[in-house]
Amino acid sequence: MLLSVLNYVGMAVFAASGALIGVRKRLDAFGIWTLAVLTGLGGGVARDLLLGITPPTTFKGWENLTVTSVAAFVVFFFHPQFGSLRRTVDVLDAFGVALFASTGALLAVHADTSPLAAALIGVTTGLGGGILRDVLVNEVPLLLRGGELVAVPALVGAGLTVAVDQAGGGEVWALVVGTSVAFFFRVIVMWRGWTAPYAPDNAWAGIAGLARRRRDRPTP
Amino acid sequence: MLLSVLNYVGMAVFAASGALIGVRKRLDAFGIWTLAVLTGLGGGVARDLLLGITPPTTFKGWENLTVTSVAAFVVFFFHPQFGSLRRTVDVLDAFGVALFASTGALLAVHADTSPLAAALIGVTTGLGGGILRDVLVNEVPLLLRGGELVAVPALVGAGLTVAVDQAGGGEVWALVVGTSVAFFFRVIVMWRGWTAPYAPDNAWAGIAGLARRRRDRPTP
Amino acid sequence: MLLSVLNYVGMAVFAASGALIGVRKRLDAFGIWTLAVLTGLGGGVARDLLLGITPPTTFKGWENLTVTSVAAFVVFFFHPQFGSLRRTVDVLDAFGVALFASTGALLAVHADTSPLAAALIGVTTGLGGGILRDVLVNEVPLLLRGGELVAVPALVGAGLTVAVDQAGGGEVWALVVGTSVAFFFRVIVMWRGWTAPYAPDNAWAGIAGLARRRRDRPTP
Repeated sequence: MLLSVLNYVGMAVFAASGALIGVRKRLDAFGIWTLAVLTGLGGGVARDLLLGITPPTTFKGWENLTVTSVAAFVVFFFHPQFGSLRRTVDVLDAFGVALFASTGALLAVHADTSPLAAALIGVTTGLGGGILRDVLVNEVPLLLRGGELVAVPALVGAGLTVAVDQAGGGEVWALVVGTSVAFFFRVIVMWRGWTAPYAPDNAWAGIAGLARRRRDRPTP
Repeated sequence: MLLSVLNYVGMAVFAASGALIGVRKRLDAFGIWTLAVLTGLGGGVARDLLLGITPPTTFKGWENLTVTSVAAFVVFFFHPQFGSLRRTVDVLDAFGVALFASTGALLAVHADTSPLAAALIGVTTGLGGGILRDVLVNEVPLLLRGGELVAVPALVGAGLTVAVDQAGGGEVWALVVGTSVAFFFRVIVMWRGWTAPYAPDNAWAGIAGLARRRRDRPTP
Repeated sequence: MLLSVLNYVGMAVFAASGALIGVRKRLDAFGIWTLAVLTGLGGGVARDLLLGITPPTTFKGWENLTVTSVAAFVVFFFHPQFGSLRRTVDVLDAFGVALFASTGALLAVHADTSPLAAALIGVTTGLGGGILRDVLVNEVPLLLRGGELVAVPALVGAGLTVAVDQAGGGEVWALVVGTSVAFFFRVIVMWRGWTAPYAPDNAWAGIAGLARRRRDRPTP
């Protein structure tokens, strides 16, 4: 029940992020709707294909299609209200990724996959929709672009979900802990502007630079 | 039998649309062939993965590979004849989408999926090859670009196919009705230049605008 | 055993090619790592989905993730050493494609698919990671670009692997023959700068041109 409600919330925020990018790319109403639906449902379909659940759950009822369509509809008309919030797309994306990574990992564990596989399938669930969205509008996925730790928070969140569940903490705590950690980790990354290092031009200088970087990190 | 012949026709026109785009993008012979084959077979592979049919049917015989290769070969040499017809790629694409959406939906129904899932899998079958084609040549899929209702006609056609089949109309009528409606709906959209609205800059003005738009639509 | 070691080698060179492209595209450390892992594992995941092996083998243990991560790490620090070798990415890519096409085809045969399906799944295994890599960094896949016969060597190698295995030559010889032929075929293509023809502007002139082309080909 909780799992299913959270899944709808994740889908809606994902679809909203897809719709917002569609608005920014000047797609028309149906383009925005299609992009929103694919962004909202893409991660779950990838998860089901990896778990061998065919046809994917999302194809079996009207609910997911309705939730993502409503999200697209709301964004279509009220995007200025969304857009004026700073970095709205990124925060929505962070929340969707965190939720889906956690719920995806939990569903995978319940489908009797190994803990490691469950965590990785969780990450795929969380990132699948966003990768699909960015590839379709012809952008290098947020996941790969500089200065944005996207995969690591999702991996930590999905791993924690599996760990809490396997340790007997119950599915509620597994989801709460996994989602919260993945979300706040990602938000802190965006807020502090934490960047990952670029490839050094010279290996030894690069290694020395990494060491210096760690030593000189300014205290918050 | 009919289903299988129609499937080859759909594959060939899809492969031809892929080959034509390959020619326009100045790909070489093998690039054109690869793009044609992937465009022709992509939707069917997506359908089989969603239905849990592994390995996908298309991998099991020479037929599909041969049909798409012949289509690529013909376009390679005779593309000026194709290209001089106005909007040829779009019309071929429309026919391929309509056929695949309808046959995909029917195959899904015969594989005992629910009517809704069957319609959605039909749409995926119809649009999968074209999305793959556009993503591979680094374009935003036709599906998402402005003024082109692509997904809606496919959805209507796939839905009608399922409805006619479930109502006991027989598979021939299901395919004829579904394919024809999806195709002519799409062609009319292209012919009349029907465009979908863009996201309004202001919600209330936008809603008012939609209402005005409906009222002021010029009579044909 | 041999199969498994070769698989790691293929994964590592594929991941290295992904990491090198990441470095060239100025992605940061995590972007490079993600691209390397997806490039290294993408072909195998595609193979497992096509064979109905869920969850994909690659999700079941740490080994593949470790191998690709190490390859990404090495390239991250020592890319100038890699990059100064001429066409390094292309040669690494050629080796990865050849190995994966051959091992993928053999795994498919062992999973009781038909010889033809096995060869095609081998090609998909070989090319899947590279296509994913190029699509993610927003490039038209190497596979489609002019003057580069990529799919044909892979198809020949995968086909030979299946043929040797079916003829009772044993899996070692099947892999050695398939991989070597696919690799050297591809390297010769790159070395000699063999180009495939472009689509002719006029069909009959084009066919005449092809005939002339064959007659006039300079002796090596």
